[in-house]
Amino acid sequence: MKEGARGEGIDTKISTLGKPGIDSPVKSTTIFIDETERVLINTSLKYVQSCAGKKTAVPSFELAGPRKKIFFDPSKTKCGVVTCGGLCPGINDVIRSIVLELYFMYGVENIYGIPYGLQGFIPKYKHSFIELTPFFVEHIHEFGGTVLGSSRGAQNIAEIVDAIERVNMNVVFFIGGDGTLKAASAVAREALARGFKCSVIGIPKTIDNDINFVSKTFGFDTAVEEARGVIQCAHVEAKGAPFGIGLVKLMGRDSGFIAANAALASRDANFVLVPEEDFDLDGERGFLASLERRLQSRGHAVIVAAEGAGQKYFQDLPQKSDASGNIRKGDIGLFLRDRIEEYFHSKDIEINLKYIDPSYVIRSVPANASDSIFCGFLAQMAVHAGMSGKTDMLIGLWNNMYVHMPIALSTTSRKKIDIEGPLWMSVKESTGQPIMKN
Amino acid sequence: MKEGARGEGIDTKISTLGKPGIDSPVKSTTIFIDETERVLINTSLKYVQSCAGKKTAVPSFELAGPRKKIFFDPSKTKCGVVTCGGLCPGINDVIRSIVLELYFMYGVENIYGIPYGLQGFIPKYKHSFIELTPFFVEHIHEFGGTVLGSSRGAQNIAEIVDAIERVNMNVVFFIGGDGTLKAASAVAREALARGFKCSVIGIPKTIDNDINFVSKTFGFDTAVEEARGVIQCAHVEAKGAPFGIGLVKLMGRDSGFIAANAALASRDANFVLVPEEDFDLDGERGFLASLERRLQSRGHAVIVAAEGAGQKYFQDLPQKSDASGNIRKGDIGLFLRDRIEEYFHSKDIEINLKYIDPSYVIRSVPANASDSIFCGFLAQMAVHAGMSGKTDMLIGLWNNMYVHMPIALSTTSRKKIDIEGPLWMSVKESTGQPIMKN
Amino acid sequence: MKEGARGEGIDTKISTLGKPGIDSPVKSTTIFIDETERVLINTSLKYVQSCAGKKTAVPSFELAGPRKKIFFDPSKTKCGVVTCGGLCPGINDVIRSIVLELYFMYGVENIYGIPYGLQGFIPKYKHSFIELTPFFVEHIHEFGGTVLGSSRGAQNIAEIVDAIERVNMNVVFFIGGDGTLKAASAVAREALARGFKCSVIGIPKTIDNDINFVSKTFGFDTAVEEARGVIQCAHVEAKGAPFGIGLVKLMGRDSGFIAANAALASRDANFVLVPEEDFDLDGERGFLASLERRLQSRGHAVIVAAEGAGQKYFQDLPQKSDASGNIRKGDIGLFLRDRIEEYFHSKDIEINLKYIDPSYVIRSVPANASDSIFCGFLAQMAVHAGMSGKTDMLIGLWNNMYVHMPIALSTTSRKKIDIEGPLWMSVKESTGQPIMKN
Amino acid sequence: MKEGARGEGIDTKISTLGKPGIDSPVKSTTIFIDETERVLINTSLKYVQSCAGKKTAVPSFELAGPRKKIFFDPSKTKCGVVTCGGLCPGINDVIRSIVLELYFMYGVENIYGIPYGLQGFIPKYKHSFIELTPFFVEHIHEFGGTVLGSSRGAQNIAEIVDAIERVNMNVVFFIGGDGTLKAASAVAREALARGFKCSVIGIPKTIDNDINFVSKTFGFDTAVEEARGVIQCAHVEAKGAPFGIGLVKLMGRDSGFIAANAALASRDANFVLVPEEDFDLDGERGFLASLERRLQSRGHAVIVAAEGAGQKYFQDLPQKSDASGNIRKGDIGLFLRDRIEEYFHSKDIEINLKYIDPSYVIRSVPANASDSIFCGFLAQMAVHAGMSGKTDMLIGLWNNMYVHMPIALSTTSRKKIDIEGPLWMSVKESTGQPIMKN
Repeated sequence: MKEGARGEGIDTKISTLGKPGIDSPVKSTTIFIDETERVLINTSLKYVQSCAGKKTAVPSFELAGPRKKIFFDPSKTKCGVVTCGGLCPGINDVIRSIVLELYFMYGVENIYGIPYGLQGFIPKYKHSFIELTPFFVEHIHEFGGTVLGSSRGAQNIAEIVDAIERVNMNVVFFIGGDGTLKAASAVAREALARGFKCSVIGIPKTIDNDINFVSKTFGFDTAVEEARGVIQCAHVEAKGAPFGIGLVKLMGRDSGFIAANAALASRDANFVLVPEEDFDLDGERGFLASLERRLQSRGHAVIVAAEGAGQKYFQDLPQKSDASGNIRKGDIGLFLRDRIEEYFHSKDIEINLKYIDPSYVIRSVPANASDSIFCGFLAQMAVHAGMSGKTDMLIGLWNNMYVHMPIALSTTSRKKIDIEGPLWMSVKESTGQPIMKN
Repeated sequence: MKEGARGEGIDTKISTLGKPGIDSPVKSTTIFIDETERVLINTSLKYVQSCAGKKTAVPSFELAGPRKKIFFDPSKTKCGVVTCGGLCPGINDVIRSIVLELYFMYGVENIYGIPYGLQGFIPKYKHSFIELTPFFVEHIHEFGGTVLGSSRGAQNIAEIVDAIERVNMNVVFFIGGDGTLKAASAVAREALARGFKCSVIGIPKTIDNDINFVSKTFGFDTAVEEARGVIQCAHVEAKGAPFGIGLVKLMGRDSGFIAANAALASRDANFVLVPEEDFDLDGERGFLASLERRLQSRGHAVIVAAEGAGQKYFQDLPQKSDASGNIRKGDIGLFLRDRIEEYFHSKDIEINLKYIDPSYVIRSVPANASDSIFCGFLAQMAVHAGMSGKTDMLIGLWNNMYVHMPIALSTTSRKKIDIEGPLWMSVKESTGQPIMKN
Repeated sequence: MKEGARGEGIDTKISTLGKPGIDSPVKSTTIFIDETERVLINTSLKYVQSCAGKKTAVPSFELAGPRKKIFFDPSKTKCGVVTCGGLCPGINDVIRSIVLELYFMYGVENIYGIPYGLQGFIPKYKHSFIELTPFFVEHIHEFGGTVLGSSRGAQNIAEIVDAIERVNMNVVFFIGGDGTLKAASAVAREALARGFKCSVIGIPKTIDNDINFVSKTFGFDTAVEEARGVIQCAHVEAKGAPFGIGLVKLMGRDSGFIAANAALASRDANFVLVPEEDFDLDGERGFLASLERRLQSRGHAVIVAAEGAGQKYFQDLPQKSDASGNIRKGDIGLFLRDRIEEYFHSKDIEINLKYIDPSYVIRSVPANASDSIFCGFLAQMAVHAGMSGKTDMLIGLWNNMYVHMPIALSTTSRKKIDIEGPLWMSVKESTGQPIMKN
Repeated sequence: MKEGARGEGIDTKISTLGKPGIDSPVKSTTIFIDETERVLINTSLKYVQSCAGKKTAVPSFELAGPRKKIFFDPSKTKCGVVTCGGLCPGINDVIRSIVLELYFMYGVENIYGIPYGLQGFIPKYKHSFIELTPFFVEHIHEFGGTVLGSSRGAQNIAEIVDAIERVNMNVVFFIGGDGTLKAASAVAREALARGFKCSVIGIPKTIDNDINFVSKTFGFDTAVEEARGVIQCAHVEAKGAPFGIGLVKLMGRDSGFIAANAALASRDANFVLVPEEDFDLDGERGFLASLERRLQSRGHAVIVAAEGAGQKYFQDLPQKSDASGNIRKGDIGLFLRDRIEEYFHSKDIEINLKYIDPSYVIRSVPANASDSIFCGFLAQMAVHAGMSGKTDMLIGLWNNMYVHMPIALSTTSRKKIDIEGPLWMSVKESTGQPIMKN
């Protein structure tokens, strides 16, 4: 889906475990959100009018927030939190706020951390659950990473549900990306199938910000801040040498949001390469010739490449064994470095290329202020949703509102930069980069 | 207006100088925004349905963005930029992007910076206009403040229009707060009355984030980041001494957004005092007794006060002369410091109060990445609006969309924290502070 | 003493509890420091030659470091750590390294933290000692402040020694400033008088860097870094308004090292006022007239004042009660603010003065990398000294070497900027400020 | 030379162009440094006494600082500044202070920047000299890198001297590392041989801090600060996954000062590998087995490797062509990454290794406060030396004093970590790493 899409004909209905019938103990609010509160997906006036004209329903999401009636009795409720996949700024903020909201607002005292991602559910790995208390989480938001540990990769769904059922966890919060959310959904459905009352709530975590129907994922803002600093370094290096080139590889397997936003934040990049826009290396209008023109006119250049850019160039490469230290198939950073050096070498032009792959440095820092606040709200909304018996859903931010979203909706495809939209237009204006296609 | 308000019965029509008839030279986009594109103000499904039921129009804003037809001939256009009022992170980013957008996208080469705010228009101050070129603005975004200088206070509207007319400026961008926007609106109307074709575009600048119908103003994010750091210092001080109290005064004359958000970002504050929620100092349920209970139970406390909090306590104070260094009327920080010290002194309890007034330190830093990006978009949208002949309007962000808004709409009242809404609820949860009213 | 002094005729002999006779368990080194190793105080060749000519001894300090023979049997040793006075970046680094060095290098397992400074020794305050373990201190260096808490003010020496004797502490580390070190020395002498074998080791802590014969105290570097940022903000404010003046008050009651160094680090200050150099406010050559000339020629000015500057102006001021919020006697920041405003008001010149008092913000941050490393070495050297039975001494850094110094030597007077030396010369060059005396 | 060496029998005499006979125009000081002022190299009391006993001269350096009589007439003097080799935080600070000192203190108005290092002297590269004025350098210290540009590699000495003679430059400041300083010395000697009065002053620049007889080079402190941040990220990554390993490669071809200091500053590293200490990979006591033991006991590990560590493992590797993207000969980071993965793979132990090569990010940031101040002093001392007619020398910091040092003395060998000294002892204590030799 592109940035601008608005979700016609999609299913936005949220699964529930049953009718909530217990009075909410939340005292901090006088305003509970009614179950029927929904917000529009597409806020275009024309679109709304056209729906009215066609007498079709306007697509909308269920609004998140505290419910007057909840499903689980807090004094008997057990909850779990699991963090999966790569690190992302703010995970500890989310864990902390889930624990504090459950403990102080709902009075839930049995909260478990599942260690090392989905592995933590599986007996053979022999990880023990971690008891999560307000004391345990007091300072964790001041550190990057996840205090629970994480792991990548799938695990057997039945085994996960077995583990949850064994300790009789009523609400489980899955903090993770695409794969994790799919697993969470499978867990939710398996539990429903077993008749086991377990609320499964997802909190999307992807530093690439590429979750469908989710305006912004936590940690993204912080990652862009860090990435901006790296581009500034590349710029300094580029200007510091004759025909200096600073080449930065940033995260973004399928979507170039970090690259695009960091380029806009720094204003130093001259070329931004993302998966969403195809480009040619060779030819008069290709990237290499464009780069040469830039160097000839200004003396230096800064290139930002998302890791998923230019994948067409890797289709024919022989797969090499990692263990021998060779280039990994599809590494656009090393590939561009080598192709640029070859190109100018062949033209006998001396360049000074500095390649920077900041990698993990961008994702393991603590959350900035904006992400910290965001994580707090996501966690609170997730707790409200879980305690009210929703399941198979995630908390998303859409048009500045926190909403409930069926997991399936967000995992069908990835959000991508709309290369005809304002973000990419602004990147092109800021860099001045041409269309690099022959 | 409260955060949640949705603007029924308001006038959202934008004034124009005339019908745009010149082809836009903007090449970076294939998607121009049609004049009829509007976005809903209130995105609640129920609300939209009720409008349909009542057959009333759904309130909406005009969408910002590049127009296919523009009003001014770029080769003959002269533009001006003025920055007014207190500093705010990101002003230089806005100036820079206005200049680059005008110069490279529209081909406008005559751009003037008006020095030191509205003073810069008035002949008696003898400030000369500054020629703004891409070279001049190249690095300015890396510095805080405004490269044009600023000033506070009103100036004669007719004299301002005289100055604009004298050099025949076609588009003038006013970057400023409430007072500046009102002046801009008066300038726009005076020019219209004179039949002088001048587009006046406002870009709201208020570090307090209290502009009506504007979700977020630029610089606010950065200010919250800085304020978070200060609260963390206050926390360290509070924990470092027996019965330690860290007291931080933050900006926020009428609205406590910085205080509330910084408290959420740091998670260290135990009391947040804002103008929106009344509190008593004395009495069993008052602030001082609450503070004592907190100290007795935890040994330390952190208090964050917005400068406009507790103004009821200043109504009877005699006005003292500033020059003698006495407390200025209404300084909640010094007032609280003294009242807290008195209270515990009278009870013979030894406390260690550390008072921090970070003042200008929060607003004079460069913009963080998120604000930098935001400033770039605001500037581009402002240029599109100006070149297409709109006037007496400002660029706002509403539900994540950039929109055109009549200036009058935003300056009728101030945006305030909804103390029954999710932001304040979250602050109360995070601090655990009680309702401090007898 | 001035920066340049070199300590002729001073007593540098270190007190000891007795002859060390136990083999050191430290395995990490093959190089132990011999008891006779000393380093010169004054490294001038001429001075050394003149001593030789006069056949007088060249003044020198005992070199710090691990000893082959130690005094205390680690398996039976109990140690204490106390932190006193105002906060300073790096205190937690020192505590942490003391604990780890004692525990892992010497095998000492009984280590107590004395809470809230000297109060912690005194029974009536009812503070309990904190057991310090490697686990307890693992992350403390990542936070500002002191994990033990601190307090100001003197306590009864006999009571302190009683408390130490009661739990039979063998080595006590006092981390504090002038007053604390004097107390530590009194404790050491009282213990010696009682025949109680207790090693008292001081680690000088003063953010003002004004300890005699100590080149640099920990936290100073970090404080200068923070202060630089504040001066940059003042500079931005000063440039942002017509006749803008940024006025910053920095720490430095008796010595202006932070002000001088922060001014050199930022290069933005036009006037640096320190206790060491007298200045007049009035008169043709006075500060106010100089400031006016600066404004007239450049349009803005940045002033940095150490809190102890210009004290002659406070001698006649009536003492006002603090509780009423009036100017505290001797507050140079508020005093200058008012005098500057009066001066320009009387001359009918409109200025824009922004006053910044960063206060606690500068001292409560975590240590920067350089200070962290420094704190580690200070702590290790202190542990070596304590375990080898030295007492009534502190660890100092002199000419880049860690040395043992009798406490009395450092507390007789304060280190001050030599206003004829290179530091102050450089400040005058950087600011261009004149001699402001009539 | 090791850290601890003290330079017996070395030549510390400084070359001069002739007898200074012009009164210094420097007004900011009343204290000029006499030509005969010298400071001891070795400050050990025993050493000084043994020299006295043997009646040999005590080795000493000439003290830097302003001279009462200077050699060049400022009104006729032309100066040049050149920056060579890799970037390092603070170069712009040095350039700026040289220009301001020459301009404002000595009244020298003709100052040229030589672009792109030694290339800038050579006509065939067609770079033009840059006129350096106070206005040009006003803000440059706020940016990383060098405003003059830099380049690597040697150029013909005669051609350089030709270029200097052609414009009749009297003082040339060479800011660079080992190779640059050797070139500067050759230039100085060639000029002397030609009878051309040109003062050549070196300011040592090496981020590795490996210049002989120089306690600290500028930029090092900032680099350690940045490197500490990277190690913290590696630590977060290592703790975030089962058997997580964070592997960081830092600069340090011949000396491991950055690695050692950054490890001490972060306290998170478990293994620090430097060129100075040999280690085995294999065998019971080797690095890999040690790493396995660490993982088995604590679950994660952080490794910091200086780029010059373990070079014995690259002696037999076939040289591979860079252009094909293969591992470059001697890249310890990639080599360790692969060997660690192989080792655990062969033992069927699943690890999660995250490799970080921060490369240019560490050296292209602006100088921190401490380095900024340091750069200012180096520049001022260099200007004093140049104007007084010294040549073929560099400015060094030794035992906290700025001294004059013959270039030849510093370029004969490199400073290295003394693996029996306190720095390395402290690293071993902090990491707990064993001797990894079979």
